[in-house]
Amino acid sequence: MDTAIRYVHGYSTTEATRLGDQADTLAELLHGDTAYPPGARVLEVGCGVGAQTAHLVASSPEAHLTAVDISADSLAAARARIGDRVTWRQADLFTLPFADDEFDHLFVCFVLEHLPDPTAALRSLRRVLRPGGTLTVIEGDHGSAYYHPASPHAQRTIDCLVRLQPGDALIGRRLHPLLTAADYRDVTVTPRVVYADDSRPGVVDGFTRNTFVAMVEGVRAEALAAGLLTEAEWERGIADLRRTADPGGTFNYTFFKATAVNP
Amino acid sequence: MDTAIRYVHGYSTTEATRLGDQADTLAELLHGDTAYPPGARVLEVGCGVGAQTAHLVASSPEAHLTAVDISADSLAAARARIGDRVTWRQADLFTLPFADDEFDHLFVCFVLEHLPDPTAALRSLRRVLRPGGTLTVIEGDHGSAYYHPASPHAQRTIDCLVRLQPGDALIGRRLHPLLTAADYRDVTVTPRVVYADDSRPGVVDGFTRNTFVAMVEGVRAEALAAGLLTEAEWERGIADLRRTADPGGTFNYTFFKATAVNP
Repeated sequence: MDTAIRYVHGYSTTEATRLGDQADTLAELLHGDTAYPPGARVLEVGCGVGAQTAHLVASSPEAHLTAVDISADSLAAARARIGDRVTWRQADLFTLPFADDEFDHLFVCFVLEHLPDPTAALRSLRRVLRPGGTLTVIEGDHGSAYYHPASPHAQRTIDCLVRLQPGDALIGRRLHPLLTAADYRDVTVTPRVVYADDSRPGVVDGFTRNTFVAMVEGVRAEALAAGLLTEAEWERGIADLRRTADPGGTFNYTFFKATAVNP
Repeated sequence: MDTAIRYVHGYSTTEATRLGDQADTLAELLHGDTAYPPGARVLEVGCGVGAQTAHLVASSPEAHLTAVDISADSLAAARARIGDRVTWRQADLFTLPFADDEFDHLFVCFVLEHLPDPTAALRSLRRVLRPGGTLTVIEGDHGSAYYHPASPHAQRTIDCLVRLQPGDALIGRRLHPLLTAADYRDVTVTPRVVYADDSRPGVVDGFTRNTFVAMVEGVRAEALAAGLLTEAEWERGIADLRRTADPGGTFNYTFFKATAVNP
């Protein structure tokens, strides 16, 4: 990742906990169909605190896993969490310290959404992926969120998150054209829907309340400082958004998972 | 259905074709997990031109199927399409000509979204459903549509459809609280996502272009007459919406399917 990029969600301990909770709740939905064979050389790009890396380790116990991130602090947290089962490297994805064709598979989760030029990033990554190797990309799409009760006030707080996120908070819906433009082949994209209602209290708590609403609440200070909403508008919107996790509320959000082949 | 309710999509032959195409494209997604056992007494409420009835007949060949609709013309079209394998009755769902507890299962697809009081309708239906019998409901949610390229102009044409539809065009997201409020038990709701990109030309054509965009285009005259948009705004919005079915575009829409038990 470009060091000039501001990571909108911050690097606090609370944020690391949130990402860990999110990963556990969503693990099966996002990662259940990813497993690399024994001996496969796999690179995770932008591993952060290792929330997704933990699932790679569990699902591909005999693969050779390498993980890079631009942040030394995040890497330290990831190593503390997962140990030396993974080779950890601090690096910018545009200047990866690896040989051409060094990996059989690349894994990129919740990274492209933060980049100013995801197409250039995807093209750059191809250098270290052998011909015939695969790329897996997972991203969210904050414009996929809708909920009951519907509320324009709640929507305006989500719109703040979309506006303040450097990169493209709506990137999930365009993974197919993006990977195609970066010259990958056999691009396959599947939506992965998180749906919460009263019959799914774990999803209400783990996703609606502690992942999505928490993420929106995380940009409060920045949204007010930027003058996107008044404090009263923010409070009303967040109250409506929280209401979707109360009894009778529902919440929908869609992640997108893409796989593709390096020609 | 209440005869006072205006059916926003109209009753034209083109509309019947559109509904048929839509049903065929979506059949597996929406109906693949519905099959009633031999001898089961099943009532479809609001069968329209029989687009969904055809799938019930195919998936439950030995069930006793009865279908009602408020429109004699629609029923005639349904009978012409499917034949006398099904018992057809013209009726208002609030005054069904059946005995208490007469059916083992009720099937309601794309009906509640058009009603002013869907909770009252669901409560009323319970009379003809035996205790322990099941209700299946399938509805769309026009607020679940999002697409690439994103466009506020396209969104305004969709918003016209939402505003002009009598009833609740966003009903899908609230099926769980709705069935719960109508005193059904064991309510289970699952989202059914239609996702289109260049790798799925059948979905692009069958759903994005010929179902969703066609449906939005169907309210053009009414939207302009109501002054919701100028003609220029409409044309720009529809052009952007059509663009999502061109190469590089993507489209997402979610249906919701609920099952529940009559206590």
